[in-house]
Amino acid sequence: MQKNIRTDLAREASAAMGALQGVETFSREDEGVEVYQVQVNTPAAARTLGKAMGRYVTLDATDEAFSDMDRREHLAKALAQEIKKLLPEDFGTALVVGLGNARATPDALGPKALEMVMVTRHLIEYMPEAVDERLRPVAAYAPGVLGVTGLETAEVVRGVVKRIKPGVVICIDALAARSAARVGNTLQLSDTGIQPGSGLGNMRSALNAKALGCPVLALGVPTVVYASTIAQDAFQQMLDALKEEGGGEFGAFTRAVSRDDLLALLRQAAGAGDMVVTPKNIDELVAQAASVLALGLNLALHKNLSVEEIRAFPF
Amino acid sequence: MQKNIRTDLAREASAAMGALQGVETFSREDEGVEVYQVQVNTPAAARTLGKAMGRYVTLDATDEAFSDMDRREHLAKALAQEIKKLLPEDFGTALVVGLGNARATPDALGPKALEMVMVTRHLIEYMPEAVDERLRPVAAYAPGVLGVTGLETAEVVRGVVKRIKPGVVICIDALAARSAARVGNTLQLSDTGIQPGSGLGNMRSALNAKALGCPVLALGVPTVVYASTIAQDAFQQMLDALKEEGGGEFGAFTRAVSRDDLLALLRQAAGAGDMVVTPKNIDELVAQAASVLALGLNLALHKNLSVEEIRAFPF
Amino acid sequence: MQKNIRTDLAREASAAMGALQGVETFSREDEGVEVYQVQVNTPAAARTLGKAMGRYVTLDATDEAFSDMDRREHLAKALAQEIKKLLPEDFGTALVVGLGNARATPDALGPKALEMVMVTRHLIEYMPEAVDERLRPVAAYAPGVLGVTGLETAEVVRGVVKRIKPGVVICIDALAARSAARVGNTLQLSDTGIQPGSGLGNMRSALNAKALGCPVLALGVPTVVYASTIAQDAFQQMLDALKEEGGGEFGAFTRAVSRDDLLALLRQAAGAGDMVVTPKNIDELVAQAASVLALGLNLALHKNLSVEEIRAFPF
Amino acid sequence: MQKNIRTDLAREASAAMGALQGVETFSREDEGVEVYQVQVNTPAAARTLGKAMGRYVTLDATDEAFSDMDRREHLAKALAQEIKKLLPEDFGTALVVGLGNARATPDALGPKALEMVMVTRHLIEYMPEAVDERLRPVAAYAPGVLGVTGLETAEVVRGVVKRIKPGVVICIDALAARSAARVGNTLQLSDTGIQPGSGLGNMRSALNAKALGCPVLALGVPTVVYASTIAQDAFQQMLDALKEEGGGEFGAFTRAVSRDDLLALLRQAAGAGDMVVTPKNIDELVAQAASVLALGLNLALHKNLSVEEIRAFPF
Repeated sequence: MQKNIRTDLAREASAAMGALQGVETFSREDEGVEVYQVQVNTPAAARTLGKAMGRYVTLDATDEAFSDMDRREHLAKALAQEIKKLLPEDFGTALVVGLGNARATPDALGPKALEMVMVTRHLIEYMPEAVDERLRPVAAYAPGVLGVTGLETAEVVRGVVKRIKPGVVICIDALAARSAARVGNTLQLSDTGIQPGSGLGNMRSALNAKALGCPVLALGVPTVVYASTIAQDAFQQMLDALKEEGGGEFGAFTRAVSRDDLLALLRQAAGAGDMVVTPKNIDELVAQAASVLALGLNLALHKNLSVEEIRAFPF
Repeated sequence: MQKNIRTDLAREASAAMGALQGVETFSREDEGVEVYQVQVNTPAAARTLGKAMGRYVTLDATDEAFSDMDRREHLAKALAQEIKKLLPEDFGTALVVGLGNARATPDALGPKALEMVMVTRHLIEYMPEAVDERLRPVAAYAPGVLGVTGLETAEVVRGVVKRIKPGVVICIDALAARSAARVGNTLQLSDTGIQPGSGLGNMRSALNAKALGCPVLALGVPTVVYASTIAQDAFQQMLDALKEEGGGEFGAFTRAVSRDDLLALLRQAAGAGDMVVTPKNIDELVAQAASVLALGLNLALHKNLSVEEIRAFPF
Repeated sequence: MQKNIRTDLAREASAAMGALQGVETFSREDEGVEVYQVQVNTPAAARTLGKAMGRYVTLDATDEAFSDMDRREHLAKALAQEIKKLLPEDFGTALVVGLGNARATPDALGPKALEMVMVTRHLIEYMPEAVDERLRPVAAYAPGVLGVTGLETAEVVRGVVKRIKPGVVICIDALAARSAARVGNTLQLSDTGIQPGSGLGNMRSALNAKALGCPVLALGVPTVVYASTIAQDAFQQMLDALKEEGGGEFGAFTRAVSRDDLLALLRQAAGAGDMVVTPKNIDELVAQAASVLALGLNLALHKNLSVEEIRAFPF
Repeated sequence: MQKNIRTDLAREASAAMGALQGVETFSREDEGVEVYQVQVNTPAAARTLGKAMGRYVTLDATDEAFSDMDRREHLAKALAQEIKKLLPEDFGTALVVGLGNARATPDALGPKALEMVMVTRHLIEYMPEAVDERLRPVAAYAPGVLGVTGLETAEVVRGVVKRIKPGVVICIDALAARSAARVGNTLQLSDTGIQPGSGLGNMRSALNAKALGCPVLALGVPTVVYASTIAQDAFQQMLDALKEEGGGEFGAFTRAVSRDDLLALLRQAAGAGDMVVTPKNIDELVAQAASVLALGLNLALHKNLSVEEIRAFPF
């Protein structure tokens, strides 16, 4: 059994654990996008999985799904469908929160996505007659990160939420995956909000319904894999290969050195805990992923807007 | 008498009005920096001047004072002295607020300065034993602007202030001057906070002691002059010149056309109300001004730090 | 007669001069875009106008034409038509040169536009079979400015042109207009290349057919008006108004003070020579203008691409 | 014997090979900085090592040497000493070339460093009398990368060199290391120029004395490790550990599976060839490394400037 798998994707955490009481998974394919849902139903399952109770939806596309504009649009539309299922009816104002550090590329997904989210709350408030009636009030907020502001992100967001009383909060954050193959090909959406310790910025306090007093969705894309995870997985695959091919000698091998010793070696090879594996074109990938998230949100939060209308906003 | 002078500098507003009951001004020179103070003492004077009651200190240096590193340091030290006079004793936590739009160059002064403000609140809170005891808790916060976030800046700042309860708030904002000669040569510090309609972002609500529940300093540098102001001033200077040189013909001239007609012409020549006059090297100027403000704050908010220590932070 | 009018737009220079031997102008309207052509036919006319011999085409749209995506597309298509008329047949490789300083907002138009120009030369050279046959080889080059590189821009561009031997060079540069109303509403295209002293960066040497050995087009948008020009124009309008309304008093007025004295006063009010008048949202305007220029170029340089295909590039 | 080690550091390549005919190494410590020199003397050694003939100097500091301003200054001074040893006497003009993609963080080291290099060539040429005589003519040039410009970097640099005829060219480039521990702690300087296939941008043609007609120094800092290298090294360390601890069972183990099978597994775990391992704070690291390189160059290229004078430039 794998332990200490460092991933923000419920799908990966669930796959590592195998079948688990209190966890349901569903999968369907939708025109080239695999929609995979993990439902965590019990506190016990949440503890075992290291994921809060709730629903996690993963949209998986094939390789480099973000690099092609048509596929980005297709993914954004599929995402919008899933977001709509989780949005409360008549949510009034939506507050989109872009978590992460705008000046640290792999962590900048949230602030970057915000730049493309259609912000309408002030227009609807100050010139309601001039605003297309299909638009709903959306505000966008980038709280920054603790190391830059000296302020707990959750603290700041709670302060703003208390003031403007949104009907739903949607947090966007950069994620860590377990598998390098998912970086840049996967979106995760959940109705659980953000838990302490998750995301690249490693939040200290929760941003969830309990903390904010309204439904909180979380939206993210993995932009890195921790180097230690890569090393650990490589080791596991090797053990599996040895088991299959190696027959009797495997026993001798495992007696020879302890598993923990080997893991320590691997981690050392991969460098300190803060080393991450990331595509060389990480700047481009973050920009593309941000545009998918923003487009998905723009489609889901407003009524019957086309992609062309969204591109042409403000209108 | 001049009316409708559009300037965020109390010194300019006061100069345009001439001597005024309820307004005191002081001036002294300090090693090449002119320190000029305007004290607005009565509600009537505040109304006439269009500036809230309180103290406004202007530091004026000679031409292009920001382009030279030595002079920037000199100005920052003079600024630190003035800030210290306005800081409450034992202020606990200081919250520095960077107003303005980080993505609009002439308006980006606040967010730019924040990047260089030493942020220490989280260090002091989470690892107090590791922190130099001369450091005081400082947090830094860039609320964004209404057009980008959909949120009233004052609303957001109030939410954060309520959460973290600072002993003093210091707002940094880009200003409009009346005279092009002051752009890039002047700093203004006041104990009045920020009033509605001031600054380039044109705040809708106040950020002052009444709104935030603690002393609020305002700190700014003019980065633009409104084109309409330039035109109006050019006209005024011309009238003055005519008066001096023109003798009797002046009467004939002023009868010929009305003053308002001329002003309308001038405004039209200068373009719509949102045209601003700004140096061509505005990006550089904003960066330099931001570094002066941040250095002045870093010197004033902490105890006995040298410029070298501040440059070497984190230490 | 106006002198010393500081404008990079041939249309404005020509309008200031009135009818001039050796200069032909044509105007037509094309679905809301005014296409205005100035043809400078003789060396004498070129000297008087301060513009090199050749053809200058201005596309003028109505107010804030760049702020709306549909109108940007419309303008880009009209621009593409005009560019095609000036492109040599079978030009082989096109080199697009983005002049100006990427780190000075009003001067960053060229480098910004380059970011959106479809670059294909390397694809066609290294994997010709994989490239859509409608694409022609385009390279993009941002030489930087003298103050940042220590290198004469023309010198650097000549070095590159000699190496890669393009069939046409297209220079993009930020321009100064005379009238604030043209900032952000006008595009200028010419077959004359870039002359010394023009553009915001104030080139020292020419980038034209003689210097580079192939046809050189110039493409630009005014992003500023010099403050001194505004002041001068305001004065001129006032004089005109006086002439009309003032009758006999005008003589007395003009005797009273000399024109040059007044101009000096006006210039002083407008600040030093490097002050420019620019819209407050200059960052946004430069981004929008850059996207129009890039889209126009992408449509003109390749064969039968749709706007959607260009957006989806690389394909 | 290790093969296919992917590193731009001659020190690592040499260490992987062990003692080799035609390769000399020297090491000394200089106040906390280890100066390690690899001299490749024969074509055969160059082929075996995969490094061109010439001298490679590595400056290794301890952990996170770049994060502390004092240590950055110390490293820069040590670097300046080494650069001076390799500079030709009376080099006339120096051309500093910043290789890499300014918009891809791990590859942006060269362009970022250029921003801080003191550029003086134009000052000395156009106003020699106003320039401090300790300054020598330095130009700075960022050619961009093939994917963005459509132009071979070497082609463009050769064009510029031919025009301005510098006495020495210094190329700055982001490097790949073999060991994650060297990322952000090591500088490499060589007199060999840049070879095809090296650096993150993977140059296609050489930038060396033969290609450019003058001495060419190369200066770089590793900003990434290829994920495949990490995986391979982890495997090697494990084998070594088994050898030591495992005794007789090692034979059985290695018979069980082939080495190549295992390597293939490891590479697969680490993701595609373009995955890189990089610190999470890569943006910060690149900025800090760039400032060390620029300061080292500024100290070496001019005469007797202090760090303070360099910071205060232009003076």
